Amino acid sequence: MTTAHYLDQIAAAVEHRLREITAAPPGPYALVKEAMEYLLFAGGKRIRPSLCIASAEACGGDTDLALTYGCALEMIHTYTLIHDDLPAMDNSPLRRGRATCHVVYGDAQALLAGCGLLTWAYEVMARPGVEGRVDPAIAVRIIAETSHAIGWSGTMGGQSLDMIFTLRGQASVEELELMENAKTAKLLIAAIRNGALLARANDQALARLTTFGEKIGLAFQVADDVLDVTADEAKLGKPVGADVQQGKTTYADRLGLDGARAFARQLLDEALAAIASFDAQADHLRGLARFIVERAY
Amino acid sequence: MTTAHYLDQIAAAVEHRLREITAAPPGPYALVKEAMEYLLFAGGKRIRPSLCIASAEACGGDTDLALTYGCALEMIHTYTLIHDDLPAMDNSPLRRGRATCHVVYGDAQALLAGCGLLTWAYEVMARPGVEGRVDPAIAVRIIAETSHAIGWSGTMGGQSLDMIFTLRGQASVEELELMENAKTAKLLIAAIRNGALLARANDQALARLTTFGEKIGLAFQVADDVLDVTADEAKLGKPVGADVQQGKTTYADRLGLDGARAFARQLLDEALAAIASFDAQADHLRGLARFIVERAY
Repeated sequence: MTTAHYLDQIAAAVEHRLREITAAPPGPYALVKEAMEYLLFAGGKRIRPSLCIASAEACGGDTDLALTYGCALEMIHTYTLIHDDLPAMDNSPLRRGRATCHVVYGDAQALLAGCGLLTWAYEVMARPGVEGRVDPAIAVRIIAETSHAIGWSGTMGGQSLDMIFTLRGQASVEELELMENAKTAKLLIAAIRNGALLARANDQALARLTTFGEKIGLAFQVADDVLDVTADEAKLGKPVGADVQQGKTTYADRLGLDGARAFARQLLDEALAAIASFDAQADHLRGLARFIVERAY
Repeated sequence: MTTAHYLDQIAAAVEHRLREITAAPPGPYALVKEAMEYLLFAGGKRIRPSLCIASAEACGGDTDLALTYGCALEMIHTYTLIHDDLPAMDNSPLRRGRATCHVVYGDAQALLAGCGLLTWAYEVMARPGVEGRVDPAIAVRIIAETSHAIGWSGTMGGQSLDMIFTLRGQASVEELELMENAKTAKLLIAAIRNGALLARANDQALARLTTFGEKIGLAFQVADDVLDVTADEAKLGKPVGADVQQGKTTYADRLGLDGARAFARQLLDEALAAIASFDAQADHLRGLARFIVERAY
């Protein structure tokens, strides 16, 4: 199975599982529930669930359980996108080829929808522990680690730095790496670790997968910066060059397009080296790593 | 010990525990961490931690553990306050007698700070399960229930309805009750249930405490509406009459001041009746119920 096929398969499974998760009738909360589901079901590559599932697979674990936890990560990722697009943040009109959540539902409902998805993701992570489908000790570890990854020294802190650097109009490469690692890489690393934790991976395997995640997390952002310059708007689903227009400092900006691509390639090599000792069960994970970097070529 | 003294004692303990929780150096995230702590350490009655602790006490449980989970609830409560004050929501300039978070740190950092507190609260709830200080099965149940209480059919959904009703300019008493129950009561009920769950209360005790929480949760909001009309601005810490000015429909508005007070008193009686079978260990909980209603007299 090619990685493209694997991603399509997982995207369909994520869509299906997310429909199950969100099946409850909205009652009087129809507007904000619709706002929550608007971007959640607008496609997307479902990279985080894919990494979670492929990591569980690499460690010989239950991929169906990893699908549920992957959906929680996708809900978290969607929360960050809804909030990043708000007028108070990047003020973006377009996401995944559609008008952004706040454009359709207003700033207040979009802000609430983002927090609603974040909160719901935790219920999705906790519930299998309550119902005996996962060891509660593993569920609380996943919840604690994920919280740390997306909190003030993670995704949220990275976005805070992004806003500060954008206001300031410049950032050093070191600052950029710090910000991107927090904003993007830490949730990707959490996706990989969560899959491994569900599979009861040992500490050595966890450490190797963490290194893999660190490299891929950074490569992901470098590739995104390249795509921001080179991609079609239709393909990207958001305005091309938006980062540059907003005065954001990007890797493409600092290293040049070729330099950024070479850096992403180097990170891919380092990522694959970190999991060289894994057997063929890790091939989907390897394929995802290549996909993440090669979409910028 | 009087309830006022009990509340003072808990407020001091909450302050101390929150200082421990937030003691980590901010590193490069100083601005947003400061924004997170700005309102968290601006006083407040710490009602939710008090209910959590008093409920654990009523069930013969460990009040120190309940203090930690109470702090998580206070972090969640603070997140809702920061977001409710944003220009996209109530656009409030004043909270707890200080300029609101977004006035000091800007809309973007305030929005992020709110989400950061929410996320951190989950880490605070999960960590004792990871470290063996609480049964992980109890921790995941608390996390699942709390998520449900503050999600799209809880606190967040209630705020969504509040915004809708405010835009519309009117709401029926039934709509008002639904909205207030979601927006305010559910987190108070969660505080009470979390304390009881930590104390391994049986289903019957949990059910009684839940009824108690439902009554007190509603009474809390009715009393708040009365206070919004009658209190000094200095005492309230926010502009008096703000709800009325914003076209919000309040209980004081629908029932009149005396009618609202009588309703709060009736709810208090029903709350106390629900836990009549509890022994003197529940006296602090009873005292808190009276305090919540009687501050509006």
